[in-house]
Amino acid sequence: MKQNDKLNLTMLCDFYELTMGNGYFQCGYQERITYFDVFFRRVPDGGGFAVAAGLDQVIDYVLDLHYDEADIAYLRGRGLFSEEFLAYLRNFRFTGDIWAVPEGTPVFPNEPLMTVRAPAIEAQMLETYILLEMNHQSLIATKASRICRAAQGRTVLEFGSRRAQGTDAAITGARAAFIGGCAGTACTISDQMYGVPAGGTMAHSWVQMFDSEYEAFKTYCETYPTNATLLVDTYDSLRSGVPNAIRVFDEVLKPRGIRKCGIRFDSGDMAYLTKQARTMLDEAGWTECAITCSNSLDEHLIEDLIRQGAAINVFGVGERLITARSESVFGGVYKLVAVEDRGGEIVPKIKISENVAKITNPGFKKVYRIYGPEGKCFADYICLHDEQVNGQPLELFDPAATWKRQIAENYQSKPLLLPIFEKGQLVYDRPTLQQIRAYADAQSETLWPEVKRFDNPHNYYVDLSPKLWDLKHELLRRKGRTEEEIE
Amino acid sequence: MKQNDKLNLTMLCDFYELTMGNGYFQCGYQERITYFDVFFRRVPDGGGFAVAAGLDQVIDYVLDLHYDEADIAYLRGRGLFSEEFLAYLRNFRFTGDIWAVPEGTPVFPNEPLMTVRAPAIEAQMLETYILLEMNHQSLIATKASRICRAAQGRTVLEFGSRRAQGTDAAITGARAAFIGGCAGTACTISDQMYGVPAGGTMAHSWVQMFDSEYEAFKTYCETYPTNATLLVDTYDSLRSGVPNAIRVFDEVLKPRGIRKCGIRFDSGDMAYLTKQARTMLDEAGWTECAITCSNSLDEHLIEDLIRQGAAINVFGVGERLITARSESVFGGVYKLVAVEDRGGEIVPKIKISENVAKITNPGFKKVYRIYGPEGKCFADYICLHDEQVNGQPLELFDPAATWKRQIAENYQSKPLLLPIFEKGQLVYDRPTLQQIRAYADAQSETLWPEVKRFDNPHNYYVDLSPKLWDLKHELLRRKGRTEEEIE
Repeated sequence: MKQNDKLNLTMLCDFYELTMGNGYFQCGYQERITYFDVFFRRVPDGGGFAVAAGLDQVIDYVLDLHYDEADIAYLRGRGLFSEEFLAYLRNFRFTGDIWAVPEGTPVFPNEPLMTVRAPAIEAQMLETYILLEMNHQSLIATKASRICRAAQGRTVLEFGSRRAQGTDAAITGARAAFIGGCAGTACTISDQMYGVPAGGTMAHSWVQMFDSEYEAFKTYCETYPTNATLLVDTYDSLRSGVPNAIRVFDEVLKPRGIRKCGIRFDSGDMAYLTKQARTMLDEAGWTECAITCSNSLDEHLIEDLIRQGAAINVFGVGERLITARSESVFGGVYKLVAVEDRGGEIVPKIKISENVAKITNPGFKKVYRIYGPEGKCFADYICLHDEQVNGQPLELFDPAATWKRQIAENYQSKPLLLPIFEKGQLVYDRPTLQQIRAYADAQSETLWPEVKRFDNPHNYYVDLSPKLWDLKHELLRRKGRTEEEIE
Repeated sequence: MKQNDKLNLTMLCDFYELTMGNGYFQCGYQERITYFDVFFRRVPDGGGFAVAAGLDQVIDYVLDLHYDEADIAYLRGRGLFSEEFLAYLRNFRFTGDIWAVPEGTPVFPNEPLMTVRAPAIEAQMLETYILLEMNHQSLIATKASRICRAAQGRTVLEFGSRRAQGTDAAITGARAAFIGGCAGTACTISDQMYGVPAGGTMAHSWVQMFDSEYEAFKTYCETYPTNATLLVDTYDSLRSGVPNAIRVFDEVLKPRGIRKCGIRFDSGDMAYLTKQARTMLDEAGWTECAITCSNSLDEHLIEDLIRQGAAINVFGVGERLITARSESVFGGVYKLVAVEDRGGEIVPKIKISENVAKITNPGFKKVYRIYGPEGKCFADYICLHDEQVNGQPLELFDPAATWKRQIAENYQSKPLLLPIFEKGQLVYDRPTLQQIRAYADAQSETLWPEVKRFDNPHNYYVDLSPKLWDLKHELLRRKGRTEEEIE
């Protein structure tokens, strides 16, 4: 594990966090307790749900937060910050509370994925990093989940490092892809750092290095008889690549009693080539030889290949997964929802917007997930922190169409946000990546298939409690808006 | 500068680099000299050119390459690698040569942006990192160049850290955006590490923290009278935000004789709001107040806002720049093009493919950029390493349409690839980021406007010398393919 050996990322913040921090300090607001929610407004690719990820890196960041002397010197050089503020930063550490959904949880628009309660400066300093990490990893986990659903149980490997948007996108992107359902990665350091199973065999350059494809394959199989996946498309897949692979399997693997092996296509018509290759391999007795394909794949191409009967066991998915090519942004935001007054009373805050969808849900809140008797969840219920959901009949209504109402009676509920930090102390028992993956797989089983489909997925209910709904509308009225304007 | 304080990224490689490396070692190929080219096949967004970036981070990577004890232990644990190979890795360092185009250079499909000449293992170990870094930064620099062209001289700021694909995407993404033409960033650490000018003022949370918008603005202006850009859309931009801003400018800035200030919109109809706000500001005498807009902008929205007469001085561009939302992948590849035989003779190599566009240009090559008498470039000329271009009449022809020929006579030429490493030693005088930016700006002036437009840009000529063309076709013939099949 090389996690300690890394860049101090405290200064990976938007500059306005520092100007605001210094401003709060100057006007005596630095100890004022604030509540910020992290939430997103729509699922990428029109999907029915997202997969939350990135919490573990946020925890690392919060634990490591410190302004070192180089940071202080840089900030002093900007000429905007008081010496008192710089002295405060020198002793800065996070003293607040954080609640968050565990990584691997299916999540829905407009509900808090995380709530930060902390003195104004501290909460503000976390904004950029929390968003960056949760947006990035949730984006990739969600995309991986889509791709793995399309593969219908076939293996999906993450192959995208070379097209990733920077080093961290490759490293934590492979981690997020694993949470979303990938079986492994090509990225070695992601295995070393996080335990994402990494593997690989050969590039075209290996084949080109030898005088013949046959010699290249033979040398490879002799070196790695138990890890022999041969890349067959360097010259001519069906006339040269597959026959050479079979010849080498016969000469090198068969005498050793090895039956597991593989070939890989990285170009060409995958449906045609794999069906032809499958026949050739089977006729030669290599029925256990797995066929891997890689070449700008995504969930739609994979669905289509399967529909065509392509004989593919393993999909290697690169650029379209690691950059979430079809929609490369997960739009999580970090919004002030309440402050505490001097008496400790929680004063809810709202942000109004010309864009109706950007109006926030005010107050210190919690979220319950509501399950039917068959164990599938059918609604999330956002209420104020002092409300309880424990089996009483629940009136659920669509906040965008309040006449759509139902009473839920026979249900189970579970709080969605867990305590992560309390008074600056980590109180969360951090799961391993393998545990997160197992949890994510189990969580996926709690969703109705209608939520998981790609086209027109069921619009999962994320409802507000009547008390929260009333609070929101009271605040809107006070800001001089009518309900007609915001609906 | 915090550049030394970072993760050892040597293991940020595809696992197959290690299996191939060990394989080369096992069969005595580890000292065999290889030549790899980095090139890309198409410009994102259908653009006429790309902006090369990422070289400086590649240099850092090559200089820092080392397998530490934790790396060796991890690799040993995989059970695939010989102890001799692990001992070799322990003393690994790069001993080869690298040529590359300077950062900020406009580049075109199918020409080498970099050539690596090194023993097989060494060259192979660089593959993933070189591609990742050059793909990522070239992608963002190219996108930034588009957005800045759309802004027609107005200021563009990079605001995307919170939506970046991981930490490095934010940090080096801001760097690449600066190379591409952005004036600055919101990302503080990019300023600290690379000198990308970072700035920022306030979020909505600042406005919400105070009892009134007026109080929030007034406190801000009193704290930062010379850095006062007020976010006016928290409640109601035209009825509350702009009037409060004007009132505070009058009360706080005017008495101090400060005339420079700003307001920012982050939502709503930007064309309408900014024209209204401009009128209100001008009527109040705040003609030097700059108007900044941010809200999911890209080159097309910016063009459209300008066409509508929006009164915008500064564009803050976030997610669609930092993730290159419209096309999030720069498809650079790293391909073996030659090896040296035991006598030191260079043997060109080719990779054929079912996909014609994936057939490589073989051999150890160099590239000349050809300029007309007005100083604009009109072709790039790829030839073999022992060819010279020095004013002789040049026959230029389109490699995909060889009947299209012209003779260039009155031209200037310049080699595109510069020596970066020689025998493992850095020989390149690394420019500062400010120098790279100045170079990029100057290079942009060497392009014809027809290459820079967004729709149907001129297809810039990237031609092969007759000798290289003949070599390529000779190799294709030898591999049993006819010219008809590949054309």
